[in-house]
Amino acid sequence: MDKIDASIITIGDELLIGQVVDTNSAWMSQELNRSGIWVSRRTAVGDNRVDILQALDDEARRSRVVLITGGLGPTADDITKPVLCEYFGGKLVVDAGALENVRSIFTRLQRPMIERNLQQAEVPDNCTVIPNHRGTAPGMWFERSDRIFVSMPGVPHEMKGMMTADVIPRLLRRFTLPFISHRTLLLAGIGESFLAEHLRGFEESLPPEVRLAYLPNYGMLRLRLTVRGGEPGQATATLESLFGNLRQLTAEWLVTDEDIPIAGAIGRTLQDRGRTLGTAESCTGGYIAHLITSVPGSSRYFKGSVVSYANEVKTGLLGVGVQLLEQYGAVSQETVEAMVRGALDRLGADYVVATSGIMGPDGGTGDKPVGTVWIAVGNRQKIIAQKFSFRFDRLRNIELTATNALNQLRKFIASAG
Amino acid sequence: MDKIDASIITIGDELLIGQVVDTNSAWMSQELNRSGIWVSRRTAVGDNRVDILQALDDEARRSRVVLITGGLGPTADDITKPVLCEYFGGKLVVDAGALENVRSIFTRLQRPMIERNLQQAEVPDNCTVIPNHRGTAPGMWFERSDRIFVSMPGVPHEMKGMMTADVIPRLLRRFTLPFISHRTLLLAGIGESFLAEHLRGFEESLPPEVRLAYLPNYGMLRLRLTVRGGEPGQATATLESLFGNLRQLTAEWLVTDEDIPIAGAIGRTLQDRGRTLGTAESCTGGYIAHLITSVPGSSRYFKGSVVSYANEVKTGLLGVGVQLLEQYGAVSQETVEAMVRGALDRLGADYVVATSGIMGPDGGTGDKPVGTVWIAVGNRQKIIAQKFSFRFDRLRNIELTATNALNQLRKFIASAG
Repeated sequence: MDKIDASIITIGDELLIGQVVDTNSAWMSQELNRSGIWVSRRTAVGDNRVDILQALDDEARRSRVVLITGGLGPTADDITKPVLCEYFGGKLVVDAGALENVRSIFTRLQRPMIERNLQQAEVPDNCTVIPNHRGTAPGMWFERSDRIFVSMPGVPHEMKGMMTADVIPRLLRRFTLPFISHRTLLLAGIGESFLAEHLRGFEESLPPEVRLAYLPNYGMLRLRLTVRGGEPGQATATLESLFGNLRQLTAEWLVTDEDIPIAGAIGRTLQDRGRTLGTAESCTGGYIAHLITSVPGSSRYFKGSVVSYANEVKTGLLGVGVQLLEQYGAVSQETVEAMVRGALDRLGADYVVATSGIMGPDGGTGDKPVGTVWIAVGNRQKIIAQKFSFRFDRLRNIELTATNALNQLRKFIASAG
Repeated sequence: MDKIDASIITIGDELLIGQVVDTNSAWMSQELNRSGIWVSRRTAVGDNRVDILQALDDEARRSRVVLITGGLGPTADDITKPVLCEYFGGKLVVDAGALENVRSIFTRLQRPMIERNLQQAEVPDNCTVIPNHRGTAPGMWFERSDRIFVSMPGVPHEMKGMMTADVIPRLLRRFTLPFISHRTLLLAGIGESFLAEHLRGFEESLPPEVRLAYLPNYGMLRLRLTVRGGEPGQATATLESLFGNLRQLTAEWLVTDEDIPIAGAIGRTLQDRGRTLGTAESCTGGYIAHLITSVPGSSRYFKGSVVSYANEVKTGLLGVGVQLLEQYGAVSQETVEAMVRGALDRLGADYVVATSGIMGPDGGTGDKPVGTVWIAVGNRQKIIAQKFSFRFDRLRNIELTATNALNQLRKFIASAG
């Protein structure tokens, strides 16, 4: 059994000036972790020869596997390939397969090909080429003493394609990895400190091969229980038994015991019961509908949404009374309840969630400051409305409103039986 | 003039198992860069004493400023504070200001306070406390020889509050930083290689203090021109003059010459002209409305959206003919054009963009495979529809459809004069 550590090096000035958020590292870590490879460090460096060489040295000292992304583009600032040549002592040669790939992509796109594009097919002569089925830059696999280095493009879907089709299967063939397995719970309505106190006994009684992680996420909390090592059958049994205890201990706040978003958990319940859903959104501006429709297969239960940003859309498309709007204002219990009634009728959905609030930075009043939100959920029998106060920036207020709306919806559907 | 390099260390197993995407580092890099501090490295390590100590040593060797986030929570795996005590040789004491802050937060939330929460107010006795106005964990500023270390919580909006109110102003008072300034262009409809070729002469003629960066972003391209150093008046004049040339060289593909998203650029044009906007979304499920309403002040020009996921919403709320839907299908030129007509009427908007497509993973047919999308934009005089083929996963297909829809909309509004 090999205990294999990996390091991830991401290369690119765009990471260091902060123009790009690095989503690659998280995805790669997840995939490696699932395969039993522990990522012990992640480092980002600029398009700078000295820093790249230093990072390669540093990470090779720590980890058996060093995965590198970025700096393989066709522009002058992309220097990863020459630096890899220098580090591994190779020289650039055209790879026939990679060249064919570049040509076929340009033919398909019907774009003119220039010298720069052809250079994408050059690789150091001492690497194994990893084909790129989603773009022009090939991946490169190097070995030195017992270390493995893999260089991949920074474009997320190209890197993901290579990792899934080639890199991970090769690593799995190469090493005998420890068994690793996770189970995850999503909780709502409970703080991290309080829960940690509540679970203190459980946590202290965990065997050494099992770990509990707290992962706060937009007003919700994810708990992840991981077992690592041991005989797979026995390790799985241990994990399942402990996970059962954990589920019981947290039943009061449980959203779902699968590693899916809350919109996915709601979708599953709706599908099981053959019910449908719609949204009527003012302040969330379509974000709740987006979270719902991000789930594959959501067209089976999601009817649609009326995003009623302007008051005349609230009256015209949702049938909210002009007088009601004038009397109570758009951000009020009366309005969100009327939005639910209107959407149940116009969208023909069994359940509707509605939002109206002030997300900021402008639009607040003394009476209704920025962050004031009304959320209502209902079906044809009943409507429940609740007021919330958030105090963050516009985007976070939108996200928190959406998360809370989905949680209200989940509870309503659960109690509707 | 000081040339100050910074390193960012992010701490937390959640980063290494990939459960959390690190958005903090990008934001911090942006803010530091804007202040004239260059981030030369970013490193993520787990909640592990040895790795944290090693990272502190490594980064302090490289950089004058070491910013640390994460590992300050109240649970057992958060070990940053004791490790900082060990590294700087301090001992934990209760800070009166931080304790008062914890108490006032719990009073406001009307939550019971437990021992763990009070421990949040403990800090090493040899640090300067940075107040946290948005949460319970205080920040800590350490100095050792000529190095500065700042530890902050990993919760993004808490870290951002501290950086803006305290850390950056303190750093600016401490160092005499070089002048730095950026100008950014957003382009659409042009590939990176082709553009690099087109701008080769421009790039080669740049003076050493000016740098051009290519930043691909969902089928669009951001170009960033940076000047660093020199006398501010002269440096700004150089930057502006070169930026003028760059704008001329890229006029054909220019979306906006400000550092704002495409939805912001569209919003500005609409507001200038006193026009309004609506969306009719099938496959994008509200995501375009979300991008539009993420822009502060969008309520001044955005009427709303009909997210017509189900066909009966297309007919009922958008007036798309039942027969038309049967004859051509939901994913067709005829349907998206009818959606535009319906939404212009029902939302009372001057411009409407509509989408219908198959985002995957299911739902594709031989005739209309996954990734097939129709986008239409129009006003009361004219409607233009276009077909697209994407070939990625569901989320990326949604994002690309939304970006392309906004670009079609931008071009339509521009040509409508």
